[in-house]
Amino acid sequence: MRNVTRENITEVFTGYFGPETDPRVREVLISLATHLHDFAREVNLTHDEWRVGLDFLEWAGRITNPERNEFVLLSDVMGLSSLVDMLHSVPETTSSSVLGPFHVSNPPPMPMGGDLKRHYEGQVVLVQGVVRDLRGNPIPGATIDIWQTAPNGMYSSQDPKQDIHSFHALMTADENGGYAFTTVRPVEYTVPNDGPVGKILDAAGRHPWRPSHLHFIVKADGFRSLVTEVFPDDDPYLDQDTVFGVRDDLVMKYVEQPAGTFPEEGFALSGQVPDAYAKVDFDFVLADG
Amino acid sequence: MRNVTRENITEVFTGYFGPETDPRVREVLISLATHLHDFAREVNLTHDEWRVGLDFLEWAGRITNPERNEFVLLSDVMGLSSLVDMLHSVPETTSSSVLGPFHVSNPPPMPMGGDLKRHYEGQVVLVQGVVRDLRGNPIPGATIDIWQTAPNGMYSSQDPKQDIHSFHALMTADENGGYAFTTVRPVEYTVPNDGPVGKILDAAGRHPWRPSHLHFIVKADGFRSLVTEVFPDDDPYLDQDTVFGVRDDLVMKYVEQPAGTFPEEGFALSGQVPDAYAKVDFDFVLADG
Repeated sequence: MRNVTRENITEVFTGYFGPETDPRVREVLISLATHLHDFAREVNLTHDEWRVGLDFLEWAGRITNPERNEFVLLSDVMGLSSLVDMLHSVPETTSSSVLGPFHVSNPPPMPMGGDLKRHYEGQVVLVQGVVRDLRGNPIPGATIDIWQTAPNGMYSSQDPKQDIHSFHALMTADENGGYAFTTVRPVEYTVPNDGPVGKILDAAGRHPWRPSHLHFIVKADGFRSLVTEVFPDDDPYLDQDTVFGVRDDLVMKYVEQPAGTFPEEGFALSGQVPDAYAKVDFDFVLADG
Repeated sequence: MRNVTRENITEVFTGYFGPETDPRVREVLISLATHLHDFAREVNLTHDEWRVGLDFLEWAGRITNPERNEFVLLSDVMGLSSLVDMLHSVPETTSSSVLGPFHVSNPPPMPMGGDLKRHYEGQVVLVQGVVRDLRGNPIPGATIDIWQTAPNGMYSSQDPKQDIHSFHALMTADENGGYAFTTVRPVEYTVPNDGPVGKILDAAGRHPWRPSHLHFIVKADGFRSLVTEVFPDDDPYLDQDTVFGVRDDLVMKYVEQPAGTFPEEGFALSGQVPDAYAKVDFDFVLADG
């Protein structure tokens, strides 16, 4: 043991564990050390490169604050956040996707057919769908927490011109599991790229863009909570989301509707949308809890 | 590509690189992502565990300051620092070992035979040896930067009772490549364990101790600089250094010398050591630069 070598160091690391160690802690740490050591050996990591890596982590620490977590962003752009999501997704249910840092607590309730865009301009988008279980049964009373960017590409927490609950709302599904609201299109935006993560993206020749999306958290008693995002099929960044959030089943379509066809009742905007509008149908399927 | 899955995410990550990326950056980042993804899949990393990992990094960021770098310590206890050292060591030369955080700039020069312990009490230890090249030739004029703990287990930078250059000195090898000085034994000590790294050690059932050691940086024109540590063969933590720094060729022996045999000249302490003392012989072999 005394002679630690480049070949046996992982074994030495494993030999250091105490007999009382929680088996899961042991499993996770041994796997982590094994891959860290294999990585260093595989690329023959130099002292200078090791130092650069440590400096990046230190910089990430300095730039992290309650509003910005550079370590989460690092996990996002390395694909780790999305991979952890996917590892625990349940087949045949709606895929989960990254929560992101822009969710706001205590969103204001919005009634069925409510309007999320409020005073913002732009073509009206009518979003509707049903929350179901794996067997196809509707889930009445499911709550649907919704948030998105304003048309300027900013979430309320990033934008001093928006109040904190702008483009945030909480709906409750009706007796048929249905939900419906109006909004305007969210827009693509860049992840924060003025810190170490931005340097990594630059070095890799990667852009910092995310495709536009609507965020949802769908919850119901007896079911697993679903944190997800829904992306339009015509977004230019759909195939290269810098945080790897897009899944086939999370892609939706803006379907153009002719002028004069907006529903005459059931919506806050009924009677106020003479022009063409777009419709999105998106159902959620929750896994049993 | 659009449908990122748990199986293809590493491939998607690889596909995101720009055509102009530096080949080494590409190689290192792809290997890092591959091992990160393999780790997550191998242990089926949960959201809660992912969150714990990110919280640890955030905590490490908060606790890091110019005097304490928790990321370096994390690398040390995971074995990464030692592995990087070992990957770049040259066979047949003295092994390198971790620099650690306690080196002080501009150590005061110490003449041949000087005394490092100054007013500290304890059995005198006479340390001597030769700096050589790979062909066995001495390297006159090599500089030997020496530092160690005081008998209380603290380095000068940790201990308000010591001046900053206490137990730090810079020697120059004589015309035969030789060096010699007196000191007292350094003592074993714990790495800082009141932060996230301490939590990891606790969870793994590991102690935070390092075996006692003398630190050296040996430099000479035309040779690779050597950063290393030398450990006594009777230290209780020799086989379980928490930062994996011990190598077979870095183990030395305190050889007891009878009372009345301390050299009568050539040492600052000549004529002042009537008692038994200990002698350490340790040669350094430098790689060609």
